Amino acid sequence: MKYNNDTILRLFESALDQLQTPEEPELLYTPIIYSMSGGGKRLRPVLLLLSVDAFGGSVEEAVPAALAVEVFHNFTLLHDDIMDNASMRRGKPSVFAKWGGNVALLSGDTMLIMAYKCLARVKSENLQRVLNIFCDMAAEVCEGQQYDMDFETQTTVSAEEYIAMIERKTSALLSGSAMIGATLAGASDDDIKKIYRFATELGLAFQLQDDLLDSYGDECLGKKIGGDILEGKKTFLMIQAMRMATHEEREVLATTHLNKQLSDAEKIALVKSIYDKYDVKRYTEQQIEVRFDRALLALDTLSIAGERTQHLAEFARNLMGRKK
Amino acid sequence: MKYNNDTILRLFESALDQLQTPEEPELLYTPIIYSMSGGGKRLRPVLLLLSVDAFGGSVEEAVPAALAVEVFHNFTLLHDDIMDNASMRRGKPSVFAKWGGNVALLSGDTMLIMAYKCLARVKSENLQRVLNIFCDMAAEVCEGQQYDMDFETQTTVSAEEYIAMIERKTSALLSGSAMIGATLAGASDDDIKKIYRFATELGLAFQLQDDLLDSYGDECLGKKIGGDILEGKKTFLMIQAMRMATHEEREVLATTHLNKQLSDAEKIALVKSIYDKYDVKRYTEQQIEVRFDRALLALDTLSIAGERTQHLAEFARNLMGRKK
Repeated sequence: MKYNNDTILRLFESALDQLQTPEEPELLYTPIIYSMSGGGKRLRPVLLLLSVDAFGGSVEEAVPAALAVEVFHNFTLLHDDIMDNASMRRGKPSVFAKWGGNVALLSGDTMLIMAYKCLARVKSENLQRVLNIFCDMAAEVCEGQQYDMDFETQTTVSAEEYIAMIERKTSALLSGSAMIGATLAGASDDDIKKIYRFATELGLAFQLQDDLLDSYGDECLGKKIGGDILEGKKTFLMIQAMRMATHEEREVLATTHLNKQLSDAEKIALVKSIYDKYDVKRYTEQQIEVRFDRALLALDTLSIAGERTQHLAEFARNLMGRKK
Repeated sequence: MKYNNDTILRLFESALDQLQTPEEPELLYTPIIYSMSGGGKRLRPVLLLLSVDAFGGSVEEAVPAALAVEVFHNFTLLHDDIMDNASMRRGKPSVFAKWGGNVALLSGDTMLIMAYKCLARVKSENLQRVLNIFCDMAAEVCEGQQYDMDFETQTTVSAEEYIAMIERKTSALLSGSAMIGATLAGASDDDIKKIYRFATELGLAFQLQDDLLDSYGDECLGKKIGGDILEGKKTFLMIQAMRMATHEEREVLATTHLNKQLSDAEKIALVKSIYDKYDVKRYTEQQIEVRFDRALLALDTLSIAGERTQHLAEFARNLMGRKK
């Protein structure tokens, strides 16, 4: 293999720098440049390119597809920020906050079209398969977002419903990226299924860990603790607690974020006291382990030599913030 | 040729009836079905299929591409209605009014993805070219919408700027459809350029006529007269009047729609009195003729036999509401 996680990221960033947009209309394209240059970890294109490399394909030829998934990801952020009324994104004002809803809407639409324009550079012989995977992945992300919004007004959400939602909202873009990479490298259908499994489970582990860190994360990491609790979000932790709690506790879980007599710190402490009573933290950690193990196991079953999967395994560990 | 305008519309409608969407999430897909079954003249898919037929291609095989342009067109309506705050569409409540902005946004996104999913059914040998035409066309439509919104806050808009805007907002989807049809039928690059010219000029003639009818249309047609004037829209008529008017008249043109002391009828009469003074109606009619003639002329220069273009010419006349 010619690349590792760092060199592949550099290759991708330099391709991204060369991505051209027209200069006018300015209000359409300036927000796109702003959004694309706003940093981000480029997880999806890196996973796509690592997947190409693992299966012995040409990483250079796969760059347009990698651009497509990254442009798509940034499109979802523009539109999500409209729906969530979010003023900040990656520590900067969101496009929505900076230019307003109409600009974020139309610039987002244009980014979705740009993503497909990148995809059109995929070699003709692979284009149909890749286009189908991309469309299915993209539709799943929208479905996930809709379920997530549905949950806000739904009284109860089951763990199964929640997993089905994040499988779409978080995992689909990772698994789609990995599958596109494998497809471009000419992997077998069986290997494509396995790399799909790898990325799906990894995405679930990642999202569950995200939920966990929001309530139990290390303050040193700079992330504010308890944001989900203050929003009354139905996270995996909340859903587990709801499942086990008494009738009275369920009422507390459902309404604390609306309670005007409590400070933020008191709200967080109150909800976490119920989480702690039912050992929700440990249960979530176990679930993360199960998903992460399944992801790595899926890698081991690929038909390629073990050492070819080492960068994918490293990607998975990096994503989860693990050394080994 | 196997089809005429009527039979091709029926073929398309029956394909549209068979277009499948998942059942869930309901709030994502119900608005899509509502939007797609809301009628409309199916102009773009019909033009695409007529173009295929004119060049001797397989109309049946082109149906997925025709579905793609129609789904795309309906996607633009969903998002335009958000941007324009529009409560009605084709005589029914808009998706925006019925389900709210977030639903219209996300269902619209999903329709754009669905359009590409339809396109993925195009034969592999044509897919790359068709995908490129489609993406360029789609981006132009967004650019046109942005220019149109820019004009609202721009003090002056030149006739050239206006034509450049409607070339994108109105013509691009027609010309893109015609080009995709010709491409699928294996037309030469030269013929594809000419059919692009045909549809572009036709789109311009159509939009200028739309502007004209809004101020001078026949009340019998059931369309309310003067809507553009009451909105203060910078239509082709307004731009021409502005160009020729005195300083005082320009002030009247620019501010009448905001004047709270006038009734709607008085506002319309006042603006039209300035239009009439400068013969704006006749000038616009002439421009429509010029564009329509150019469209038909472009058809005559195609390399195919004259009788093969008869249905395209009929399409053009129907679009303009003309008998001959």
